[in-house]
Amino acid sequence: MQKLIKNNIRDVRFGKKCVIVKPVNLYECELGNNVFIGPFVEIGKDVKVGNSTRISSHTFICPKVKIGKNCFIGHGVMFTNDKFSNGIINFNEKDWLKTKIGNNVLIGSNATIMPVKIVDNVVIGAGSVVTKDIKKTGIYAGNPAKYLKPLK
Amino acid sequence: MQKLIKNNIRDVRFGKKCVIVKPVNLYECELGNNVFIGPFVEIGKDVKVGNSTRISSHTFICPKVKIGKNCFIGHGVMFTNDKFSNGIINFNEKDWLKTKIGNNVLIGSNATIMPVKIVDNVVIGAGSVVTKDIKKTGIYAGNPAKYLKPLK
Amino acid sequence: MQKLIKNNIRDVRFGKKCVIVKPVNLYECELGNNVFIGPFVEIGKDVKVGNSTRISSHTFICPKVKIGKNCFIGHGVMFTNDKFSNGIINFNEKDWLKTKIGNNVLIGSNATIMPVKIVDNVVIGAGSVVTKDIKKTGIYAGNPAKYLKPLK
Repeated sequence: MQKLIKNNIRDVRFGKKCVIVKPVNLYECELGNNVFIGPFVEIGKDVKVGNSTRISSHTFICPKVKIGKNCFIGHGVMFTNDKFSNGIINFNEKDWLKTKIGNNVLIGSNATIMPVKIVDNVVIGAGSVVTKDIKKTGIYAGNPAKYLKPLK
Repeated sequence: MQKLIKNNIRDVRFGKKCVIVKPVNLYECELGNNVFIGPFVEIGKDVKVGNSTRISSHTFICPKVKIGKNCFIGHGVMFTNDKFSNGIINFNEKDWLKTKIGNNVLIGSNATIMPVKIVDNVVIGAGSVVTKDIKKTGIYAGNPAKYLKPLK
Repeated sequence: MQKLIKNNIRDVRFGKKCVIVKPVNLYECELGNNVFIGPFVEIGKDVKVGNSTRISSHTFICPKVKIGKNCFIGHGVMFTNDKFSNGIINFNEKDWLKTKIGNNVLIGSNATIMPVKIVDNVVIGAGSVVTKDIKKTGIYAGNPAKYLKPLK
């Protein structure tokens, strides 16, 4: 009556010197060089993670997310690819929305990222909910996340 | 000096064609037919999950939560059954509060659900904190979650 | 090309009668007597947890956090030790900020705790983001968390 799928690492393209702390659930994604993946992380299909980016524990990266180089993705960060905008969920992969995170982006723990684009050199405060594209470098926080101040 | 409890599946009533991605911690709960449970999910005692409902990774469903059919519970969603309203926690199960989620309810990732009732055909935005009963169909978001607009 | 670190318990000082639900990732930390650790919990270096405190599932306690006695740390609670205040992350442990949680503190699920001090006898609502020190007993909630009312 039940099908048990064991936690695993399936069809992942690893760069050099990646470090993975088990248990994780990674499938059909691509990790650059020197990528760190903490425990209790799930990364889905068609995700790309750039060189020297760190994905912290408890984070979920949904299909169709691209993350740049030298980023820090905090703990318990949830990415999304469906806005439920018509009150239904899309089971059709081609309708899932994309997210693109630039280089040197730091995302605080427990942040939630709707399907958006974020430019390089951005800080997202812990616990924030990012609902719109971020087109300008700086520090953002809140629910919904708003511009707070420039980087020093 | 320590007692180690291994992650497991204990006293769970499964419907037909359930899919479970390990590791999970499920105990004394009841899952309908075609239920999907993602990795890193904990579901406690006296929880019922309706047919064709999907519980995504990193979600915690506390004791005394009933979820209807065809729901999508996002990633990192936390249910609660104690409001700490007197500044103490209730270790007495009989004092834990109930939550009832209707059919066709979509709960976005990282949402927090206080002990409430939610009617059928509701969307809760990602990162929201639901603090009150939701009695009317529609889309809700924010902390605390407020009514945004009707479903299309 | 990859180094796999298995989920484990390494260099942990346990008090008497601790209960740990696997899988967890605990290292170089100290747990008092009667401490409960739920599944999918990560606790880092230099963390101290007081007697009879309960750390619920999916929670991450970063290095340099001290938690008092008789606390309840909810599910999916994320502690932090770096404010990214200059737009960079500190890889240098000596620059990580400290957090101190008093006794009888109840932290609701999905809360995010910036590096702060919280006095004894405080309740933090579920889904809150605590950005400042809490110097007065009472109930706090919101993003950012604000004082709501006294304990009864």
